Amino acid sequence: MTKFSSEVEVRGHLIDSMILTKIFDVIMDLGGEFEVLQMNVGKKKKEPSYAKLQIQGKTQDHLDKILEQVYREGATATIGKNVSLKAAPKDMVMPDDFYSTTNNTTEILLSDKWVLVDNMMMDKCIVVKNGKASCTPIRDIKKGDLVVVGESGVKITPPERPREGSNVFAFMGSSSSSERPTQHIAKKVAEDIFRTKKSGGKILLVGGPAIVHTGAADSVAELIRLGYIDGILAGNALAVHDIEYATLGTSLGMNVHDGSLAVKGHRNHMDTINAVFRAGSISNMVKKGELRRGILYECVKKKIPYILAGSIRDDGPLPDVITDTAVAQKEYKKVLKEAKMVIMVSTMLHSIATGNMLPAHVKVIVVDISQPTVTKLMDRGTWQALGIVTDVGAFLPLVSQEIKKIRK
Amino acid sequence: MTKFSSEVEVRGHLIDSMILTKIFDVIMDLGGEFEVLQMNVGKKKKEPSYAKLQIQGKTQDHLDKILEQVYREGATATIGKNVSLKAAPKDMVMPDDFYSTTNNTTEILLSDKWVLVDNMMMDKCIVVKNGKASCTPIRDIKKGDLVVVGESGVKITPPERPREGSNVFAFMGSSSSSERPTQHIAKKVAEDIFRTKKSGGKILLVGGPAIVHTGAADSVAELIRLGYIDGILAGNALAVHDIEYATLGTSLGMNVHDGSLAVKGHRNHMDTINAVFRAGSISNMVKKGELRRGILYECVKKKIPYILAGSIRDDGPLPDVITDTAVAQKEYKKVLKEAKMVIMVSTMLHSIATGNMLPAHVKVIVVDISQPTVTKLMDRGTWQALGIVTDVGAFLPLVSQEIKKIRK
Amino acid sequence: MTKFSSEVEVRGHLIDSMILTKIFDVIMDLGGEFEVLQMNVGKKKKEPSYAKLQIQGKTQDHLDKILEQVYREGATATIGKNVSLKAAPKDMVMPDDFYSTTNNTTEILLSDKWVLVDNMMMDKCIVVKNGKASCTPIRDIKKGDLVVVGESGVKITPPERPREGSNVFAFMGSSSSSERPTQHIAKKVAEDIFRTKKSGGKILLVGGPAIVHTGAADSVAELIRLGYIDGILAGNALAVHDIEYATLGTSLGMNVHDGSLAVKGHRNHMDTINAVFRAGSISNMVKKGELRRGILYECVKKKIPYILAGSIRDDGPLPDVITDTAVAQKEYKKVLKEAKMVIMVSTMLHSIATGNMLPAHVKVIVVDISQPTVTKLMDRGTWQALGIVTDVGAFLPLVSQEIKKIRK
Amino acid sequence: MTKFSSEVEVRGHLIDSMILTKIFDVIMDLGGEFEVLQMNVGKKKKEPSYAKLQIQGKTQDHLDKILEQVYREGATATIGKNVSLKAAPKDMVMPDDFYSTTNNTTEILLSDKWVLVDNMMMDKCIVVKNGKASCTPIRDIKKGDLVVVGESGVKITPPERPREGSNVFAFMGSSSSSERPTQHIAKKVAEDIFRTKKSGGKILLVGGPAIVHTGAADSVAELIRLGYIDGILAGNALAVHDIEYATLGTSLGMNVHDGSLAVKGHRNHMDTINAVFRAGSISNMVKKGELRRGILYECVKKKIPYILAGSIRDDGPLPDVITDTAVAQKEYKKVLKEAKMVIMVSTMLHSIATGNMLPAHVKVIVVDISQPTVTKLMDRGTWQALGIVTDVGAFLPLVSQEIKKIRK
Repeated sequence: MTKFSSEVEVRGHLIDSMILTKIFDVIMDLGGEFEVLQMNVGKKKKEPSYAKLQIQGKTQDHLDKILEQVYREGATATIGKNVSLKAAPKDMVMPDDFYSTTNNTTEILLSDKWVLVDNMMMDKCIVVKNGKASCTPIRDIKKGDLVVVGESGVKITPPERPREGSNVFAFMGSSSSSERPTQHIAKKVAEDIFRTKKSGGKILLVGGPAIVHTGAADSVAELIRLGYIDGILAGNALAVHDIEYATLGTSLGMNVHDGSLAVKGHRNHMDTINAVFRAGSISNMVKKGELRRGILYECVKKKIPYILAGSIRDDGPLPDVITDTAVAQKEYKKVLKEAKMVIMVSTMLHSIATGNMLPAHVKVIVVDISQPTVTKLMDRGTWQALGIVTDVGAFLPLVSQEIKKIRK
Repeated sequence: MTKFSSEVEVRGHLIDSMILTKIFDVIMDLGGEFEVLQMNVGKKKKEPSYAKLQIQGKTQDHLDKILEQVYREGATATIGKNVSLKAAPKDMVMPDDFYSTTNNTTEILLSDKWVLVDNMMMDKCIVVKNGKASCTPIRDIKKGDLVVVGESGVKITPPERPREGSNVFAFMGSSSSSERPTQHIAKKVAEDIFRTKKSGGKILLVGGPAIVHTGAADSVAELIRLGYIDGILAGNALAVHDIEYATLGTSLGMNVHDGSLAVKGHRNHMDTINAVFRAGSISNMVKKGELRRGILYECVKKKIPYILAGSIRDDGPLPDVITDTAVAQKEYKKVLKEAKMVIMVSTMLHSIATGNMLPAHVKVIVVDISQPTVTKLMDRGTWQALGIVTDVGAFLPLVSQEIKKIRK
Repeated sequence: MTKFSSEVEVRGHLIDSMILTKIFDVIMDLGGEFEVLQMNVGKKKKEPSYAKLQIQGKTQDHLDKILEQVYREGATATIGKNVSLKAAPKDMVMPDDFYSTTNNTTEILLSDKWVLVDNMMMDKCIVVKNGKASCTPIRDIKKGDLVVVGESGVKITPPERPREGSNVFAFMGSSSSSERPTQHIAKKVAEDIFRTKKSGGKILLVGGPAIVHTGAADSVAELIRLGYIDGILAGNALAVHDIEYATLGTSLGMNVHDGSLAVKGHRNHMDTINAVFRAGSISNMVKKGELRRGILYECVKKKIPYILAGSIRDDGPLPDVITDTAVAQKEYKKVLKEAKMVIMVSTMLHSIATGNMLPAHVKVIVVDISQPTVTKLMDRGTWQALGIVTDVGAFLPLVSQEIKKIRK
Repeated sequence: MTKFSSEVEVRGHLIDSMILTKIFDVIMDLGGEFEVLQMNVGKKKKEPSYAKLQIQGKTQDHLDKILEQVYREGATATIGKNVSLKAAPKDMVMPDDFYSTTNNTTEILLSDKWVLVDNMMMDKCIVVKNGKASCTPIRDIKKGDLVVVGESGVKITPPERPREGSNVFAFMGSSSSSERPTQHIAKKVAEDIFRTKKSGGKILLVGGPAIVHTGAADSVAELIRLGYIDGILAGNALAVHDIEYATLGTSLGMNVHDGSLAVKGHRNHMDTINAVFRAGSISNMVKKGELRRGILYECVKKKIPYILAGSIRDDGPLPDVITDTAVAQKEYKKVLKEAKMVIMVSTMLHSIATGNMLPAHVKVIVVDISQPTVTKLMDRGTWQALGIVTDVGAFLPLVSQEIKKIRK
């Protein structure tokens, strides 16, 4: 045993959830050595395992590097060390060695007590104030804020893999192939939505304009009306297309009822934007009786939040759109608070945005016709997502039909 | 006017069908010059136009090159010249300057009479025998066969664009985007199938195993049972998956009713192949009562042809598979004879194969979740195809539901 | 002839550029009738054609509908009518019947004189002030602004198809297949960039972070250093990845020189953002010598503009990012002014945004590994774009190599 | 402990290679219970681990089901049981309970001795003859052949994950994203090819016509000439395109040197086919001096095998094509014998075919511009493949350049 060594321990479904595999990987990838000092494997499905490892590096620096990574996989030092804190040197500047968060449940050892970090998101830092720890984006850092630095004293609990439940996450593997029995997947998703809602869970929908284009707007509107959606996170395009469809029957000038192009159809898009500006806002259009159906209409009627984040490609954008993306992020985050399930449909931009804000334990369902889009979201860190590669225009109506069957 | 010039004329919906555009393009692309000598534009929608052009080249060779291309776009020389014929020097060898066919309706001037070429397909040659002309693949050429050479004396009639009908080809443009109102497209396709069938048209389905995998096998079986499909062109995989699903409930080991993986599931695939070998053939399985549902079952019951073409990636393959692809091509071609509509679903291999055998006037609908696949088929010459980018597992059930509604 | 008829005329490469085809299409699609009253076809390649049509509708309304569409395709009434103008009722509200622009060169008949509309973009309106007409986005409309309404008095000139040049737009068709000879396409693109630049044309690059991820950042930096790029339009991610790569050698934690994952690599991303905040801005980093290579470094050194538009999915975002998307649009537009060529690489968001701001005559090259992305941009109205489906990481280095060869 | 229980043991890099995870998964998925009776974890990287489990089912049948799956993951019964053998009832019919193979190294316990199964492929059965066991496709089964039935007495050894090497398989993860540093990946692949070849390993190329279309044919020809490729597995299209390019400069009529369309270009394709028929074969064309460059030319010159498998979509096909796919499979398999590395480029059909024939320990590199294609191959069982999503036309030239650098 070299003198550059350290003991770590780890608990949980080590083998089943691949935690141990990842820890071994990290050590080997970094050229470290290790010994398994102790290992108690859970003898039954629900029993957690325990392992104690001795990790060796070539130098103290090398060892520290390894430990930092190992901690990120859920291990903790056997001898607990409190987190180190350093003051932010300026507004919007973190101390150099700031701890960069994951989206896993995270605790920090503060004055020898484990404190849960609030508001967990990936790629942020942890600010400690009055004995409380919260995950904080760089632009919210104020000069003097105490920020966690280094990796010691931080404990991560990766979520366990879903098991044996009848929920859609358990029965489908991780792969997101288009070769799945669509109708049955729709049924499973419907059951999961129904069950989540029944147990009081908050469900949000992140959606792009293809929902309207592919003819699925009526189904989404219905899901809202029936109470299965607690908020919409989207951009300008979804709202404009939805209102264009609700008032003129077209989506970017295409008649949604038959896919043909309307006369002067492309103008409808701009006409819709103008109509909202004339009314002053979407909710005003509803009040004046100018908007009487659709996704946004149902949101206004149900009084559920709809956050429209601006983007550089917006036409208009509508008066309801939050053009400052930093503000829009905060509004998204508010709505996402306490979410149990997030359904992401046909929008890489807003889906990745939302994924970045979610703790790893929130259920995420991504529906898109493009497999690379689905894969990309997971690669960007929202690896808990269940990817469904299908045609939104056919899939969402199936989901809403199934939910109506279950309700009866 | 140089001495290297020639007059050609062309008739039809010259402007509307872009024939004239293409002719001008060809001349310019090849560095030729032209004058419009006469041009009568149809003054009403259904009146054909007429144009006479003088085309000039830099040399006789240059002019000939241009003319050859111009003829391919539907123009003919004002002074009709009979086709030239040359004898094939050997079996399976065409004369050097053989005329290579397109998939358009083609006539040849034979002893000063226009003769329609039979059995039209692209990329073949034309053999003349007893005053009859037929489109012939290279492997069917016998030594001494008289083959059309050069480009003169050949008249092509490109099909007109569909217009003003209510059929799905007229209302959708040429682009194959995934952003279409799926449910309404399904309805349109259903109406087109219904109408084609009602008027006695023959409809064929070219399909891949994803039909079964995505849970659409029941819908296809139903379409056959109801009499809307007159033949299946496929490979080994569709048949094996269909029979695996019909007898064991799985597709490559995945339980189709819920997408979960069956125990020892992957073995089911091989088990199914063995079951067919044991019975001797698919129709024997039906006779023995071992196969009682599914696509192949309905084919056997309805006595409609199912041609299974072998491929290098086949497991087994089943005794019913034609492992010689040259033979399989002939069998495909027989079934395709007189087809009015061909529906191609989730198989690039068999779709391109079938596309190669079809005259341009046959309606082709291609359904696939991958846009590049749909585009590729069109790029390969089956440009008349209507591409629908959707999830087969959701789309085909919609089509079959819609047809059942229309029937009532 | 019914009494609901009107004469229109159209000039240009009517047949070659398919203008006439589109006009006939529009009339037929809308159920109108027409007669060709006069038609002079250009007898040589460069001679324009002329056509005069009598269009009939079933009612005056029907006729007007047809005329509106026909005008959009480039026809004008034989009896010129001045445009109608109406005052905007409120700030950011257009009059009901506002004329919605295309991205084609547009003139309006104002006091019997044709006036060119300035600052042409699609999906905007036209404001007339002091005898000048300019294309104006809805949010810039002030109460009382005189806005063009209806369709009469507006003349559009669709761009001609490129012809016979050696530029990359002429030799490739419109289709954007991945099956192209990549190395030769790269050479053609390089020649086009070189030629455009040599003749003083402004070239802009719109790019996504995949440029860095796929290892093409060095090539883009080189193109800037050599003077071939006059501005960068991008978002936060390109800048962060570029600076992460320039300072730490990684892109989202992946070592770019070999594709392996760096230790604590994902942290590098946040570390980079913090470094820029610490310096205050990207240009400050350059001044302090903390940023010494890469795309943004070259921009700062060359003093060419780089506009970073904020998006909802940004990490950080960097202090240099314009988080208000309405402001960012204006900044994009300023840089795009007078552009001759725009190269769009691996970013659907910023490419569509830029496409929306460009007149149709600007050359657009879109490079992406996903064919649907390329197609989508064109479907959204930037139909003049040349789509190249390739791997950016291999393609851009080829382009930069070729340019260096040509320079010699 | 119920009476329906059984002890199994497993050895190897249990945790690192996820073997134990998979075994636990299987048991839980099937509703079984287990206890870890013994577990010795390798304390160093290269030490194997050992585990002994007690597995319980609800009934004997249930237990047997679980055991069958557990054996497939690499476990063996602690009390060795000889394999059961049953005679094939007919030619091409396996006994009902036949053991269906995986592509892992497989041994069977025959008369209390472990015998390695020869010629390992997935989805076949095992035939025992004269104390030897060989993996056998169904069509090769003769009546009376002794076939392994059930799952006991079969031991599987899943390959270990590559580790710490400098080879491309070790440094890239399993994911196949398009966002990789292409030039560096190309270098790594080149090094791997060089190293494999240097150590005497056999390298095969499976390729589609896109190699020629994208302009990479010269690079592949060069790799053959330099001795890095020991055989080509392809179809008719690769050969026709390659010869068309070698003799006429076009690929399906497109001039490869600049991507433009050749005059009468599409005819070149058929002309090429006719030229080969006229010569009698590809090697005859080489002998006669009619084919003097290209992939097939180099194969003939180097006397390395090129197997062209027929498919239903073939034009021609060439006289050299094996139109019987069952025969072609055997020829592919012969060439694949003892392969160390297989490079699959732009052909799903031939890649999946080849993947089906390969033992899991053969290195497989798949290069394609479509991510779903790459993923599909892995999903079909060739999970050891390294997927590279890139543009073949740019990537292969990079690989060949890099190899030439290394050689020096």
